[in-house]
Amino acid sequence: MRVHGRPYRTVWMEGRVVKLIEQRRLPHRFDILKCPTHRETAQAIASMAVRGAGAIGAAAGYAMAQAALEAPARAHGAFLEQAAATLRSTRPTARDLFYAIERVHDAMRRASTLAQAREAAVHEARCLADENADACERIGRLGEPLLPEGARVLTHCNAGWLAFVDWGSALAPVYQAHRRGKRPFVYATETRPRSQGAKLTAWELGEEGVPYALIADTACGWLFRQGNVDCVIVGADRIAANGDVANKIGTYTIALLAHHHRAPFYVAAPRSTFDASTPTGDAIVIEERGEEEVLSVSGLAADGSLQQVRVAAAGARAANPAFDVTPSALIRAFITDGGLLPPQPEAIAAFLQGAEDSAASEASRRG
Amino acid sequence: MRVHGRPYRTVWMEGRVVKLIEQRRLPHRFDILKCPTHRETAQAIASMAVRGAGAIGAAAGYAMAQAALEAPARAHGAFLEQAAATLRSTRPTARDLFYAIERVHDAMRRASTLAQAREAAVHEARCLADENADACERIGRLGEPLLPEGARVLTHCNAGWLAFVDWGSALAPVYQAHRRGKRPFVYATETRPRSQGAKLTAWELGEEGVPYALIADTACGWLFRQGNVDCVIVGADRIAANGDVANKIGTYTIALLAHHHRAPFYVAAPRSTFDASTPTGDAIVIEERGEEEVLSVSGLAADGSLQQVRVAAAGARAANPAFDVTPSALIRAFITDGGLLPPQPEAIAAFLQGAEDSAASEASRRG
Repeated sequence: MRVHGRPYRTVWMEGRVVKLIEQRRLPHRFDILKCPTHRETAQAIASMAVRGAGAIGAAAGYAMAQAALEAPARAHGAFLEQAAATLRSTRPTARDLFYAIERVHDAMRRASTLAQAREAAVHEARCLADENADACERIGRLGEPLLPEGARVLTHCNAGWLAFVDWGSALAPVYQAHRRGKRPFVYATETRPRSQGAKLTAWELGEEGVPYALIADTACGWLFRQGNVDCVIVGADRIAANGDVANKIGTYTIALLAHHHRAPFYVAAPRSTFDASTPTGDAIVIEERGEEEVLSVSGLAADGSLQQVRVAAAGARAANPAFDVTPSALIRAFITDGGLLPPQPEAIAAFLQGAEDSAASEASRRG
Repeated sequence: MRVHGRPYRTVWMEGRVVKLIEQRRLPHRFDILKCPTHRETAQAIASMAVRGAGAIGAAAGYAMAQAALEAPARAHGAFLEQAAATLRSTRPTARDLFYAIERVHDAMRRASTLAQAREAAVHEARCLADENADACERIGRLGEPLLPEGARVLTHCNAGWLAFVDWGSALAPVYQAHRRGKRPFVYATETRPRSQGAKLTAWELGEEGVPYALIADTACGWLFRQGNVDCVIVGADRIAANGDVANKIGTYTIALLAHHHRAPFYVAAPRSTFDASTPTGDAIVIEERGEEEVLSVSGLAADGSLQQVRVAAAGARAANPAFDVTPSALIRAFITDGGLLPPQPEAIAAFLQGAEDSAASEASRRG
């Protein structure tokens, strides 16, 4: 997608250097972070300079490729084991991270010489990033027909391209519709407490030239009641086998509003977000994060510095659940890289089985 | 209510000086603003150092009493007309302001000497403030039985004592329950974009010793779904003849959540909030405020200064409806100074008629 009119991905590799968009200072500063070795890339993941499942996975894959290039010939295996361990510890709950590390590592194990292993690592890391971008591009193409001409789309948090390698999940159909001249308009929620809507989604949309309005989270209900929302598209952190969706806190409220006002509520996600081992949303433990996120806000001060200001009184108490669970009954459809899915266990199981089958045939072709 | 363990009202008069709690710097600084003349009091109202319908009305009444004391004997009438005009222009949409100005002015007109008029003005201003505090105290006593032992109450924005002279509307039943040892617990929404929940409600509750947790507006839905909300109490900006309620943006969403989860949703308000001349919520024009409130947040910086920081990118666009309308069908009951009311036109009309009758008999007794 575009920044200052030029095409970018969130993360890429040039020679031995991994480059990524430094997301902690967005939208106030657009910087490219250069990570000359796998250790700097691991640090970028750990410090959340890069965030979002797809972008983290791609960065980890590139970091393993860096490690392959850095490893001394005599202790190559041990060096790579150590690099994989370092990377796994950066975000210990990110499934895409583990998947990427294993895939690059496995590709190297299949090589017979060190030079081939290095080449295979770089190739596999690029494939991982391309697959992520392609999956999101398909989500966009397959979801775009759901948007009527001039659709007013409500989205929550940031499930745009900054969370992936390119295109994004929830915003991919919007970007496709925009490029096809269908003039979509996006209502982006601020998404307190971390304000990803204000900081990332509004910025993404603005850079791509998609008309939008940022709204306080409190304004969602009134928008629906005024008839100003044609559909909702959100992303997901995890989708259970029965179609229940864990996503950013506030998603459930928007799903209920959409249901009540008969506006379709879509969840856009690539295959890797579906977790067959989680039977229902009840099995998902909701992370309770620190109070400080609710009590404070960070932003750009008048003097141009980035500051955190405290909104509530000293000593104020807060509760801060980071995610919520939206029951599948409130979801109209999933927009996946394999097409639209109804929120039903059988459809989800068939989709995952189909994806496994094609992965198995791909593996046997390469094997 | 208490601040630092001492009882306070939001506004009061000592000799010729009106004193009020400076609300613009709360919760970070607790200052008493001293207004030596009616012009400073008018300025305090205009600059929102005092806010909330009840508190504004009381301040305006006291300001008219100040004007009565300041007026030169030879041009007393003209001076008061001018003072009334100045006060009316401070917040031209606040109905309580006009009512208070007229009542103090009328009380003076009934006096036969200048000394009597001055005495009557001060007396009437004190009556106005006491009536507001008494109405809220009654709301508290009449609403308190609705709260079960250990009730978990969700509230939105600030409808506490800072918006009135004392006790508040939505929080009055909570304060009564707390003083009676019923151990209520309050979930206070942050209430973006102006963060009155974080800045005022959390501070009020903390000073009074009521246990609470501040939450991001996005967390409401999950609280209901977890079964953590026993009831909702909110205030109101205006109540139409059919029971539709205009209140701070976000109220409608919470009402719908409460309805879906079968938790009672109460609206607490004194008589003056009911507007028989507004037939339904459809007749209420929702104010669209400036984008800056959504794009920025103010708070206490690390260096101890009050700062506004910009959360969204330069050039970002926002929509900012300030209020929404909750249909009467979602409201369990009104908690008024005259008792509980069902959200039905007949009940509201009878309540307003009863209040008019008692005002008429009061006037004839004084007349």
